[in-house]
Amino acid sequence: MALDVALDARFMARALKLAARGLWTTSPNPRVGCVLVKEGRIVGEGWHERAGEPHAEVHALRAAGEAARGATAYVTLEPCSHHGRTPPCADALVAAGVARVVAAMQDPNPLVAGNGLARLRAAGIATDCGVLENEARELNIGFVSRMTRGKPWVRLKTASTLDGVTALENGVSQWITGPAARRDGHRWRARACAVLSGIGTVMEDDPSLTVREVDTPRQPLRIIVDARLQLTPQARLFADIERSPLLVVCASDDTPKARALRDAGAELLVLPNEGGKVDLPAMFQALGARGLNEVHAESGHKLNGSLMREGCVDELLMYLAPTLLGRGMGLFNLGPFDTLAQRIDLDIRDMRAVGRDWRVLARPRA
Amino acid sequence: MALDVALDARFMARALKLAARGLWTTSPNPRVGCVLVKEGRIVGEGWHERAGEPHAEVHALRAAGEAARGATAYVTLEPCSHHGRTPPCADALVAAGVARVVAAMQDPNPLVAGNGLARLRAAGIATDCGVLENEARELNIGFVSRMTRGKPWVRLKTASTLDGVTALENGVSQWITGPAARRDGHRWRARACAVLSGIGTVMEDDPSLTVREVDTPRQPLRIIVDARLQLTPQARLFADIERSPLLVVCASDDTPKARALRDAGAELLVLPNEGGKVDLPAMFQALGARGLNEVHAESGHKLNGSLMREGCVDELLMYLAPTLLGRGMGLFNLGPFDTLAQRIDLDIRDMRAVGRDWRVLARPRA
Repeated sequence: MALDVALDARFMARALKLAARGLWTTSPNPRVGCVLVKEGRIVGEGWHERAGEPHAEVHALRAAGEAARGATAYVTLEPCSHHGRTPPCADALVAAGVARVVAAMQDPNPLVAGNGLARLRAAGIATDCGVLENEARELNIGFVSRMTRGKPWVRLKTASTLDGVTALENGVSQWITGPAARRDGHRWRARACAVLSGIGTVMEDDPSLTVREVDTPRQPLRIIVDARLQLTPQARLFADIERSPLLVVCASDDTPKARALRDAGAELLVLPNEGGKVDLPAMFQALGARGLNEVHAESGHKLNGSLMREGCVDELLMYLAPTLLGRGMGLFNLGPFDTLAQRIDLDIRDMRAVGRDWRVLARPRA
Repeated sequence: MALDVALDARFMARALKLAARGLWTTSPNPRVGCVLVKEGRIVGEGWHERAGEPHAEVHALRAAGEAARGATAYVTLEPCSHHGRTPPCADALVAAGVARVVAAMQDPNPLVAGNGLARLRAAGIATDCGVLENEARELNIGFVSRMTRGKPWVRLKTASTLDGVTALENGVSQWITGPAARRDGHRWRARACAVLSGIGTVMEDDPSLTVREVDTPRQPLRIIVDARLQLTPQARLFADIERSPLLVVCASDDTPKARALRDAGAELLVLPNEGGKVDLPAMFQALGARGLNEVHAESGHKLNGSLMREGCVDELLMYLAPTLLGRGMGLFNLGPFDTLAQRIDLDIRDMRAVGRDWRVLARPRA
């Protein structure tokens, strides 16, 4: 049996690698890979490429043909049991005569979790679940978040010096980190369903917020938090609006500015809170309802602080440049706190060099 | 010959390990280890323990006795050729009849560099120099600094959150980092000849600045930069003055306060600059003249900023806590800069986890 565990992990690792090929294209669907194995040999494999197109299992079954009969299917997510845009994969696996199905994790949707595997077992197929589960969950962390919490996974990217400065007092911030870190940052943008920023950053830097430094088949949605609609159609954001849609989240659209922005191609979402600002938690619920899995936030210390204070940040992607600037803009407009107990503790999950800079991946402690 | 290189490195590594046993005791002397090897076997070894006591070579020769004849001596620093508090080690090696001497590095004092090895060669002994030279230089970086620049190696320790906060706006800073990082910090204090801080930190935290978290045979000198003599004998610094001397560096001692501090056991050093503050570069030259090799600085953002601005910092020992505090005291009172070109670039030499915190060792780029 020890050998089986190792073999299962090996083939699931392959399935995860295939699944990751869909990193930039599958949303709102999860990234899923499938490997069919018979007598220790891979007889078919596939991955989900794009919503509306066949699931990973179907690609793998097609590739295997008759060899699928009696095979073991390794799939990074429990096969679906419902008719969506495509027929249920559980049925396809039964029809193909596979003998065993190993899933990395159950469907995270609490309403269906386990149903796909139950359907397989009812048809006499052996099932296992939980092989490389953590890896599978991380790969689809945004999808899992949306299914279980109704909102996207929010990853906040920052770039600062080792002494915590993100921009000079005069606003200059380009570039604190080096080209390798910037390219890495675009890689993270590319896998997100949306890139979110605040009006402060737009007015300061006039960014385009598109993915540029890496090839991507899809530009994420761009979202600007702009309570009082200070955005103008002259912003660089509108230059790319054909390729990459723009959503402006505001506290009121009862103004001529709203019309100008809509005419220029932006969509407006009105979500005021009691203080006349944007209701950030409600915004993320709304983004979840639109099918957004991962949101990549890049903003200034004000919106960073609000996102953090309101518990909207799931993960921090912090680039630290090996340099000192002394006085300047900080990372988070938080506090001032009276005691250290008010601090926000993080769990560092990864720390590595990216070019001359260092990258920290961390999550706020629950 | 390839084998010889590997063997040389192996025995020199052993000599360096022995040398490091003197990490906390040898100052103002360097840390030196010696291994005597004959026919591939170690026949004697030793290390320098304390100024005024025998050098590493003498310990090793004593341990080897007659076996030293024809042996190879591995020594982490070129053997001395002058009469100091002990006779020249080069002469002792000649007298013992060693066949070959391998040194990790030359004596860094430019007036004597190479003389010890020349004396050995003149006596018919084969010599080599440069085996594990970088490692040897790092071990005695303070001694090298004092010999070549006339001033100590200054290592500035900081402790901050990942967002660059060292204390709350109300001054609270205990504790931002965890127990493992604090203990590690005391380990670095212990190897220094002096621990330096500023009057701001004394008034804020009333620290003792002694080594406490690790065992040490010696308490470093404590140095307070206090231009206007705001220090009072009530400070906790005076509680430890029997074990650990206290030097107060000021801009003027022409005040009754000076007398009170001297009466309480402090030594005063008057080194004003034109602005009426302490002349920091002159202070480090004076500390070099007193035989201080490594100075460990722990201060607040004001003195940190001055030390950095005046080019007095050779190395940064930065502890980063995995936590966010938002607003608060920064690390360095530098700038504000107008352009990013004014930044102080660092070379990161080491980055590792220490308990829950992360430790960065970095040096300002020349």
